[in-house]
Amino acid sequence: MSAFLHRLADAQRATTSTLCVGLDPVVKLLPEPLLRTRSVEDALVTFCLDVAEATAPYACAFKVNVAFFEVHGVMGWRALHRVLSQLPASHIRIADAKRGDIGNTAQYYAEAFFTQMGADACTVAPYMGADAVRPFLQYADKAAFVLGRTSNASAADFQNLRPNGGDPLYLHVSRKVAEWSDEASGQAGLVVGATAPEELRQIREICPTLPFLVPGVGAQGGSAETVMQQAATAEGRVLVNSSRQILYAKRDGVYHARDRHYAEAAAAQAQALQAALVP
Amino acid sequence: MSAFLHRLADAQRATTSTLCVGLDPVVKLLPEPLLRTRSVEDALVTFCLDVAEATAPYACAFKVNVAFFEVHGVMGWRALHRVLSQLPASHIRIADAKRGDIGNTAQYYAEAFFTQMGADACTVAPYMGADAVRPFLQYADKAAFVLGRTSNASAADFQNLRPNGGDPLYLHVSRKVAEWSDEASGQAGLVVGATAPEELRQIREICPTLPFLVPGVGAQGGSAETVMQQAATAEGRVLVNSSRQILYAKRDGVYHARDRHYAEAAAAQAQALQAALVP
Repeated sequence: MSAFLHRLADAQRATTSTLCVGLDPVVKLLPEPLLRTRSVEDALVTFCLDVAEATAPYACAFKVNVAFFEVHGVMGWRALHRVLSQLPASHIRIADAKRGDIGNTAQYYAEAFFTQMGADACTVAPYMGADAVRPFLQYADKAAFVLGRTSNASAADFQNLRPNGGDPLYLHVSRKVAEWSDEASGQAGLVVGATAPEELRQIREICPTLPFLVPGVGAQGGSAETVMQQAATAEGRVLVNSSRQILYAKRDGVYHARDRHYAEAAAAQAQALQAALVP
Repeated sequence: MSAFLHRLADAQRATTSTLCVGLDPVVKLLPEPLLRTRSVEDALVTFCLDVAEATAPYACAFKVNVAFFEVHGVMGWRALHRVLSQLPASHIRIADAKRGDIGNTAQYYAEAFFTQMGADACTVAPYMGADAVRPFLQYADKAAFVLGRTSNASAADFQNLRPNGGDPLYLHVSRKVAEWSDEASGQAGLVVGATAPEELRQIREICPTLPFLVPGVGAQGGSAETVMQQAATAEGRVLVNSSRQILYAKRDGVYHARDRHYAEAAAAQAQALQAALVP
């Protein structure tokens, strides 16, 4: 078992949780008191770290969506580095970057997120094959979550095509990722969306030990209970992500995030999800 | 015809060139005189801009490989922004980022590269389907080059699988990209590697008007002549990228880049490639 899987098991045991809190900070949804008193960069960082601190008792992992930082250019990358380097090391810190490129370039991406930014895991796109994934599996205590079956509406455009009329592409990808993980020391996992429960079940059947990162619960329509039934294993090995539902919880149709109690509101949502996600 | 295709045609006419110079700066290969007198950030930026200035007469485009900057964390993003914002606007400036994510996240990536960083085009990964690509096609004067058939050794892992025993995946992707481009105003193109000339021919056959970004000539083994035969159209519509062969030209087995004549060496290589790539 890889050092990463040990760390994941420890984090899940310590928090009795499979919840991953997604940090997708949108400037126009940030709490007004934060924006009034700080630069946009400081507001982004403070918001993410406040939510992380408040939700840490109920979650085993945090996932930063890199695009939400990159959209701010250089300032966004400074904010991303500040957030990743200050998230609690007791938790799994995932950079949701969906990088994927040929060997030497993939090495640089792995180094960027694992060494420079301090993430424990990174999401990776499979289209370019082994070359794009293996460089992410060379770090004993890190992991790559490769896109298997994603949660978005157009996921089926290519992922559900059936090579030679047999299994769909997402199963071909999942099998290969399991092979690559075995060749390394178990450092690969899969991204499998909660919005496609039958696909989730099939993938778990052929990949019984891989950790799954599961987006799509909540705002995108996936059910927490179904995900746990289809994807959880005796060892855990599932991280269920929720972003918007936690960050921007509504009260009477108004975002909590707009008042100063955003962290407490996020914690309440995280606690409710933790309970729904008991293995 | 999209504003982007007009710009591409103008740049190709003005330079009589289909060459795209790939800017993949590696610190340990930077010229010693640059590293001795400057910070790493300044050395990266100066190297890229010196090579761009020297090769501009022989090339219609520049492509920055985002990973080679990202590997340096926040400093790398500062360098990337400085390079992209100072490349000549007469040329097509491509961010080779291979981003790909669900709709709202893809919008942020598009905004990052097109609005914040000032790129004219961005490379995009197709695995997540239309959601991941369409947000990049909403900018009239910009373009997305979607991965069709890549140039790396493991490209065939998934790209050559044959849905329902028929056309390989890369042709399914290419057809969809052509559709999405038609629905927009022609802002999509394809990345097709020079190392797979038969695949290149097939893709050109079903996508007669899309612009192609073709990596893999030179160090990766693709032939300039074959690429022009298989991919060029009467209107041009092909950008042949060369990175290492231009940046790190060898003389007696030693990198030119290590002495102060790196820009002249790059220009000589670019001029030779320009001649080999006449449509």
